[in-house]
Amino acid sequence: MKKEVVAGVDIGGTTTELGLVDRTGDVIVKCTLDTADYPHVEDFISALVKNIRELAGNNREMELAGIGIGAPNANYHKGTIELAPNLAWKGIVPLVDMMKRKIDVPVVMTNDAKAAAMGEMLFGGAKGMKDFIILTLGTGLGSGIVINGQVVYGYTGFAGELGHTIIVAGGRACGCGRHGCFETYASASGLVRTTLNLLSEMKEPSPLRNIAPSALTSKKISEAAADNDPVAVEAMDFTARKLAFGIINAIGFSSPEAVFLFGGLAKAGEALFKPVREYVEEGVQPIYRGTVKILPSRVPESNAAVLGSAALMWNELK
Amino acid sequence: MKKEVVAGVDIGGTTTELGLVDRTGDVIVKCTLDTADYPHVEDFISALVKNIRELAGNNREMELAGIGIGAPNANYHKGTIELAPNLAWKGIVPLVDMMKRKIDVPVVMTNDAKAAAMGEMLFGGAKGMKDFIILTLGTGLGSGIVINGQVVYGYTGFAGELGHTIIVAGGRACGCGRHGCFETYASASGLVRTTLNLLSEMKEPSPLRNIAPSALTSKKISEAAADNDPVAVEAMDFTARKLAFGIINAIGFSSPEAVFLFGGLAKAGEALFKPVREYVEEGVQPIYRGTVKILPSRVPESNAAVLGSAALMWNELK
Repeated sequence: MKKEVVAGVDIGGTTTELGLVDRTGDVIVKCTLDTADYPHVEDFISALVKNIRELAGNNREMELAGIGIGAPNANYHKGTIELAPNLAWKGIVPLVDMMKRKIDVPVVMTNDAKAAAMGEMLFGGAKGMKDFIILTLGTGLGSGIVINGQVVYGYTGFAGELGHTIIVAGGRACGCGRHGCFETYASASGLVRTTLNLLSEMKEPSPLRNIAPSALTSKKISEAAADNDPVAVEAMDFTARKLAFGIINAIGFSSPEAVFLFGGLAKAGEALFKPVREYVEEGVQPIYRGTVKILPSRVPESNAAVLGSAALMWNELK
Repeated sequence: MKKEVVAGVDIGGTTTELGLVDRTGDVIVKCTLDTADYPHVEDFISALVKNIRELAGNNREMELAGIGIGAPNANYHKGTIELAPNLAWKGIVPLVDMMKRKIDVPVVMTNDAKAAAMGEMLFGGAKGMKDFIILTLGTGLGSGIVINGQVVYGYTGFAGELGHTIIVAGGRACGCGRHGCFETYASASGLVRTTLNLLSEMKEPSPLRNIAPSALTSKKISEAAADNDPVAVEAMDFTARKLAFGIINAIGFSSPEAVFLFGGLAKAGEALFKPVREYVEEGVQPIYRGTVKILPSRVPESNAAVLGSAALMWNELK
């Protein structure tokens, strides 16, 4: 009997990653495409399908059972990519239907944070959990919410935009055109903004004063905090408080068993997790105390995007 | 063939309402018990079961298919009432198990706001909807969240506490021991607090200045607003903004098709709904614009509690 595999595809503005993943979460083979090389989506789809066929065809023991896709601004219900600012394909792209016309297997698509939630549930730390949330803390803050074992898509297909829930009325300007969004504080770039702000307000000497703002990263700030730089320590603490605040309100909504943190900012490790756990326990409504675990993602970052997209399809095949 | 009915029971601190409800949402017969007459829960259960049997037995054409219960601090997963401040029964009361020992039909229990969500879905304005939220705006703010056609209970059974999500960091003191909770602003008592605050800050004459604070109600404030009293108008507008703010963040979580408003404050009608709709459309993330209806509950208030509890059981019997 041939081994069943699923293609996991992660479409990014610059690069598209794809890989074949078996039912246990083993990434058998992987390759990449330069998304930016394909200004026309038809050409991109042709190249993507060709690559998937080649990966699967090179190994006669594999049978392709389906394709899971993670993409920015993806609508799960409609199978469309809608008005994605970082992709060359404008308007509403019916990507799933276009794929299905080229290859006769099931195809399903959602955004990267929802795919990450599925990856965590099938192959990571959320195995066996039915209610959890994953926050992807990169340039922005993405979120995937699982309730009753199902990813929450909502009426529009665009549910789970916790990064754009407002945690400070009239707060920091956000790329979405509004102010005070969770992601302007609790993300890698939020930490950079906080640090710049603190550099303007605190008088303590700090090695961070020698780094041009354009070169300042959450990694450098985490490292400075580990060295007890007072500005970096304060910035991490402020960020942990804001992250905890958003998590506290999310708990009041869906009462998850765990909140997983993933992405650049989560790499700060215990320097971030410890205060976040403390602030959550301190600030959460009493009935939820001691009920929610704050955990690092257990999906290996190097394969997370492909595994998440593949998990999305494996879940549909169950 | 006998007509199948379900008993809908709503346990309140003072009064317990019960009624027999058919599959179409017709309340066939109703009665009440004085909850406060039963300091021991065993006696209460005996009286409740006796009443249910009598209601059903008096009409030989009915067959009792189950019992749905709405109660404060009810845990759906465990069938318990836990630490309810307004009930005489202290600690953790395994009410569903105790009921089942007395009467051989399925019994299910949740809190009143979640029962209201079920009532709205089976018998009210949410028929056919799979994703919606109901906010009950009384002394506090209760919420029932439906996602994928299921009420959200979460890992603990206590999900959906939107009234205690924090909308103003460091804001108004809340009964839960924290500050700035949604219900301290967006509820009948929140409107009273807002009005008292405005009376202290505004200089305009207002008939509300002639009402003792202990006698001030959301109804009187709504009426004054309808008469263009400047303090009341300002208080309604402030409340509508806060209500919209909480709704905006809830939309970012679950992207519902509709948000239903129910209870004392919702009786203000268009004076509340119109500005709430405007502030939601103005403040919501652009991808959700025009996707969410803000609607009054369509379950008649006089039967809402019984219908909600009965709907909970009918839904299990599906």
